[in-house]
Amino acid sequence: MSRERVGYLGPRGTFSEEAALLHKKRSACILYQYPTIAAVIETVKTGEADRGLVPLENRLEGGVGATMDYLAGSEDVFIWNELYYPIRQCLMSAEDMRLDQIKTLLSHPHALGQCSDFIKKHLPGVECLPVESTAAAAESLAGRSDRAAIGPRRAAELCNLFLLREGIEDHRDNTTRFVIVAREDHRATGHDKTSLVLTITDRPGSLYRVLGCFARREINLTRIESRPSRRIIGDWLFFMDCEGHRIDLKKTGLWEEVGREVTFLKLLGSYPSGQLQAEVS
Amino acid sequence: MSRERVGYLGPRGTFSEEAALLHKKRSACILYQYPTIAAVIETVKTGEADRGLVPLENRLEGGVGATMDYLAGSEDVFIWNELYYPIRQCLMSAEDMRLDQIKTLLSHPHALGQCSDFIKKHLPGVECLPVESTAAAAESLAGRSDRAAIGPRRAAELCNLFLLREGIEDHRDNTTRFVIVAREDHRATGHDKTSLVLTITDRPGSLYRVLGCFARREINLTRIESRPSRRIIGDWLFFMDCEGHRIDLKKTGLWEEVGREVTFLKLLGSYPSGQLQAEVS
Repeated sequence: MSRERVGYLGPRGTFSEEAALLHKKRSACILYQYPTIAAVIETVKTGEADRGLVPLENRLEGGVGATMDYLAGSEDVFIWNELYYPIRQCLMSAEDMRLDQIKTLLSHPHALGQCSDFIKKHLPGVECLPVESTAAAAESLAGRSDRAAIGPRRAAELCNLFLLREGIEDHRDNTTRFVIVAREDHRATGHDKTSLVLTITDRPGSLYRVLGCFARREINLTRIESRPSRRIIGDWLFFMDCEGHRIDLKKTGLWEEVGREVTFLKLLGSYPSGQLQAEVS
Repeated sequence: MSRERVGYLGPRGTFSEEAALLHKKRSACILYQYPTIAAVIETVKTGEADRGLVPLENRLEGGVGATMDYLAGSEDVFIWNELYYPIRQCLMSAEDMRLDQIKTLLSHPHALGQCSDFIKKHLPGVECLPVESTAAAAESLAGRSDRAAIGPRRAAELCNLFLLREGIEDHRDNTTRFVIVAREDHRATGHDKTSLVLTITDRPGSLYRVLGCFARREINLTRIESRPSRRIIGDWLFFMDCEGHRIDLKKTGLWEEVGREVTFLKLLGSYPSGQLQAEVS
């Protein structure tokens, strides 16, 4: 049996790569990195890859627009699984050093923001330099004895850096929810979720009537997010997750009834309900 | 009468500054820039500034998490007004040049992404270099005759750059919705909106029952977005905008009824419903 080819959002040394490595550990797949979310999804569509791993939402930062837009607009790609990955920020440097020897601290602006309590307490007076990615921050440390970077442990491994501290983020419960996309969704397992996107008319009660279809069947909605359509001014996309597999939900007449209340409905896929994962190690 | 002090998210040369300049043109206020969204909102709370202008959501990128979290968690600051600002991307360089003389193109990753059609068509083969802000991209052009940057017109003005092209974004309808916050919200004008945030229990139908309170009164919801709470795992915040001023809505018994269905309810403010603004010029 040939090994599964899985595309993920590069570069290496990011939380996306850490999540991809966790998936690899379980499925013995071969990983390929791509430069954009669009490229990951497109390679699944064309068959160049079997699956693609992309971030869908971060607990603190919110939904990842590019992923949501591409899934909503793609005909032949579905959510096949999900993976909740804990965002554990590390402090790293080229040489083993004391914190008071650090003059400059580099990272992605989000990562600097997520560690602001630690920086205030342990690195007062240090110059913070935002760069394009945590991977770029780690790479720029080579040969610099007055610099440190914040990023995933994987970045330190790749660049042979010292880990000065682990878990320095202000909020210990920050996670990124990744989805694994494929050309078909997952078979029913008994503990499933379904993701969908729909549009409604701009009239009072439209969304209420849609939610009523779920409420009357006691189907729990686990997420709802409205997002402006990129195509039509004033048109909104509603992204929702509900409990249950789309095939089981179909038997209750749900999709037929929802279909009557909306102007557009697309099932993004059904997949096993994920749990927060242990860190890859 | 002393002039109003308005804080905005810096640096200069960004779309936030352009929006602040548009507000200044109308209200003859004095502008002050602050390094973070948190700092803008805090200075309003302490009275150092009278108002603060912060981005709330972008049509393409979605909600701005920092603004939503700060407003949800702040006791003494309210949305006083809103401003929809068109995101018009410009191509700029230190010297007047032909597009085929450009070797390197710098901008914020979002701006590069928003102009990808233009880049593919008119700048094939150019090296794209992502940097931390459109302002930083513009500043880095000085003395470089093979570089160009993408950003707001204001960045070109501040750095004395040539505007090679204007309006090069792929989607002409991209806008950022800014809100102006103050220590009190706006009086009723007859064309108002109310923003609120609430949490509900994780049971089927909870959100449905909340929306029912609005639907039965024929109150249109213009936005809904769920967002994980930063404080409690598994707890979700729902941000909603509805038509009408909170004082008029109170007379219908809405808040009392909604209050019975939720575990937390905070009115973020009522303010005149904004329209898409002409560009500052």
